[in-house]
Amino acid sequence: MNEFTHVDSNNQPGMVDVSDKTITKREATAESIVTLGTEILQQLTDGDIQSKKGPIFQTAIIAGTMAAKRTHETIPFCHPLPLEKCKFSITPLNTTQVQIHCTCSTSARTGVEMEALNGASAAALTIYDMCKAVSKAITINNTRLLTKSGGKSDFQAT
Amino acid sequence: MNEFTHVDSNNQPGMVDVSDKTITKREATAESIVTLGTEILQQLTDGDIQSKKGPIFQTAIIAGTMAAKRTHETIPFCHPLPLEKCKFSITPLNTTQVQIHCTCSTSARTGVEMEALNGASAAALTIYDMCKAVSKAITINNTRLLTKSGGKSDFQAT
Amino acid sequence: MNEFTHVDSNNQPGMVDVSDKTITKREATAESIVTLGTEILQQLTDGDIQSKKGPIFQTAIIAGTMAAKRTHETIPFCHPLPLEKCKFSITPLNTTQVQIHCTCSTSARTGVEMEALNGASAAALTIYDMCKAVSKAITINNTRLLTKSGGKSDFQAT
Amino acid sequence: MNEFTHVDSNNQPGMVDVSDKTITKREATAESIVTLGTEILQQLTDGDIQSKKGPIFQTAIIAGTMAAKRTHETIPFCHPLPLEKCKFSITPLNTTQVQIHCTCSTSARTGVEMEALNGASAAALTIYDMCKAVSKAITINNTRLLTKSGGKSDFQAT
Amino acid sequence: MNEFTHVDSNNQPGMVDVSDKTITKREATAESIVTLGTEILQQLTDGDIQSKKGPIFQTAIIAGTMAAKRTHETIPFCHPLPLEKCKFSITPLNTTQVQIHCTCSTSARTGVEMEALNGASAAALTIYDMCKAVSKAITINNTRLLTKSGGKSDFQAT
Amino acid sequence: MNEFTHVDSNNQPGMVDVSDKTITKREATAESIVTLGTEILQQLTDGDIQSKKGPIFQTAIIAGTMAAKRTHETIPFCHPLPLEKCKFSITPLNTTQVQIHCTCSTSARTGVEMEALNGASAAALTIYDMCKAVSKAITINNTRLLTKSGGKSDFQAT
Repeated sequence: MNEFTHVDSNNQPGMVDVSDKTITKREATAESIVTLGTEILQQLTDGDIQSKKGPIFQTAIIAGTMAAKRTHETIPFCHPLPLEKCKFSITPLNTTQVQIHCTCSTSARTGVEMEALNGASAAALTIYDMCKAVSKAITINNTRLLTKSGGKSDFQAT
Repeated sequence: MNEFTHVDSNNQPGMVDVSDKTITKREATAESIVTLGTEILQQLTDGDIQSKKGPIFQTAIIAGTMAAKRTHETIPFCHPLPLEKCKFSITPLNTTQVQIHCTCSTSARTGVEMEALNGASAAALTIYDMCKAVSKAITINNTRLLTKSGGKSDFQAT
Repeated sequence: MNEFTHVDSNNQPGMVDVSDKTITKREATAESIVTLGTEILQQLTDGDIQSKKGPIFQTAIIAGTMAAKRTHETIPFCHPLPLEKCKFSITPLNTTQVQIHCTCSTSARTGVEMEALNGASAAALTIYDMCKAVSKAITINNTRLLTKSGGKSDFQAT
Repeated sequence: MNEFTHVDSNNQPGMVDVSDKTITKREATAESIVTLGTEILQQLTDGDIQSKKGPIFQTAIIAGTMAAKRTHETIPFCHPLPLEKCKFSITPLNTTQVQIHCTCSTSARTGVEMEALNGASAAALTIYDMCKAVSKAITINNTRLLTKSGGKSDFQAT
Repeated sequence: MNEFTHVDSNNQPGMVDVSDKTITKREATAESIVTLGTEILQQLTDGDIQSKKGPIFQTAIIAGTMAAKRTHETIPFCHPLPLEKCKFSITPLNTTQVQIHCTCSTSARTGVEMEALNGASAAALTIYDMCKAVSKAITINNTRLLTKSGGKSDFQAT
Repeated sequence: MNEFTHVDSNNQPGMVDVSDKTITKREATAESIVTLGTEILQQLTDGDIQSKKGPIFQTAIIAGTMAAKRTHETIPFCHPLPLEKCKFSITPLNTTQVQIHCTCSTSARTGVEMEALNGASAAALTIYDMCKAVSKAITINNTRLLTKSGGKSDFQAT
């Protein structure tokens, strides 16, 4: 098992020094599931042409993209990284849940997992915000990394 | 059931106009659960005096507080609110999970639910970031509102 | 004619002291016109149900709202103001131009003109950004204040 | 004519993936014209040594530079780019108008048009803010790209 | 002697709850001294009409004002406060030093000491930045609170 | 003696054009000294296991790291730089003073002195904030560059 890389031998927190790592193309995809409940989700998708799903999911994509770009402002020891790709898919998973996927990519000395996770999380919170007048019993679950490539080791969620 | 207040009759998204609402004292508490797994959590809490729990949980509290103050920069239609209180408790829930509670309060024309949720979420992501070198199989669950008071109607999660 | 309130007798720039002014409800509406040209605008509005107008105008509304909330970060001597309302309308004006209106409101010691202007301007730049792959000959014009109320004197553009 | 690159086949908005583009030196110059009117402009430039023009134009340069650096925070799908050059010239054009030129440059996988446009626009709004106590009938016009080089195709405004 | 109000009985850091305090008019003035050395300061003030002092001190005022407005983004447990006044004076103190005074004011439940200190500090760092090509042996000293009023107790530096 | 690189021949302030400089690995260390006084420092370090020093110094490290990453938002003409390393040490220097060292590093066309100075300064202000309820007579001194390498010329403070 690896070390807690953000805590040094004096038990002080700090940024990992990545200055000697190689620049490689990094990619990561994260997921987040918003449990809205049947009533909200049905109402959200009502109407073929003019459902509320359009503006709500689009606002979530925009909020998620903007948050992913600024991840290093939110997570104290994240390195600033100029994102080159940030792609969202937001789709109803069943009659009660919406699934968010966020894929980030860049060429850098460190990975973009936190960018993908922060992007998915901000999109989920935005959906929450735009539906909370209908019900407060919304829950965000399963915020997790799905895949990651380009660093020391790849990762694939089971 | 209520309306989707952030989408107008032309299906355009937008901020809710709260300018005619009364200023009252608002409070909200949100929760988020980080499932770290037994190995990480045990390693995290090892050592009575100098466990890694200290710096990691403290970094999470600071990140969560700073994120809560800037919620309106992340959630597109959140109103800017000058937070007067932002209190965290982060505690191991069992051998695999850490529970985050974030309570926000202010006197305003609208509530602080999103501030509490965003604070809890940022604290959870920060714990994730500081433990991800040990394992990538961390999941954030149950990000939800626990209680809310001071607005049109109170809320208590069941 | 009035003074240049942001430059003192030593010719130093600075924030206006509003601490002794009264809190009143302020509102301002600003305009900005994006000249896209016939080709872009036609292509943008093509397709009854799935025109590109939807996502582009909605992205502009979101960008404009988020920029309006953070006006004091962009304009050096603007006072921070907690916006209570920020409403956009974006509509094709003719076969070549799109008109943006942004209305901001809050209760404060100073007005929200710059918030409305900054919001309209950010929405215009966002439309520019999303159409610039089609043509670089886009121009933003007529960024100006339309109305203002609630302060020492009202204003109505002629 | 090209595509709307920021809207996908499902009509969802999103960032363009530039991860496979080559890093080249990019430069762009944008313009913005502030119509202040004869009275303001004359008053602004009065006094050989201590005109108000000094602090107002300098504040505009600083605001424009700071805004250009943060363009990706304002324009939702702009890529974060570390600017290496940001140069302003602000000059009276005639007895009623001030002309702003902003040139941005960096080595990146995508261009700096939006940085130049956002910089010029923020400088124009700052001049507006600092003159608005004298008159509300100020207009910002002609915010447009003048030249661009270093990408797939160069551009020169006619 | 008082308590460390930002650390609770479990030794966890956190924001002070000010939600039950009364809104009063608060003011604070802070100081910072930049020791530039004789050579820089003389060169800076050379030329009656067109000394470098103009643009450098003005840039410092603008940077300090903008930083003061965003103090709660830099200092983790500072409450967000809408500043109503932020006034700078920057003056050569002798042949080697420049003195910065920053006065902040607002009506709030908590004081503006950190805003004044952060403003003075950002102005000092900006002067440093603009003079550092001339010499690296610049030092910032005496960053401290001079006066404070409007809270539980006033303060006057000795 | 060198030029004031941030002020041009028309006495206008502006960013230095670094687009033709070579990318090299840059490193800089800055210092800041917080004079807390004997009473605060003793109280701060009281208790072997649970001294207030832990949370206060850790909060300062986090605030300093986050500020260093955003230096270009505070200092008007600083270039945005993706920091690859940001390391703090905060140690009591004697019975009244705490010494902060901040080392920043990245590969870039320009140096990281301002990042190190801004990081040290934000950490110092955070310690101030967390101790100010105990005494207002705290002073921050000696904010200065200690070493710098990787650019045109190295520097070592005497």
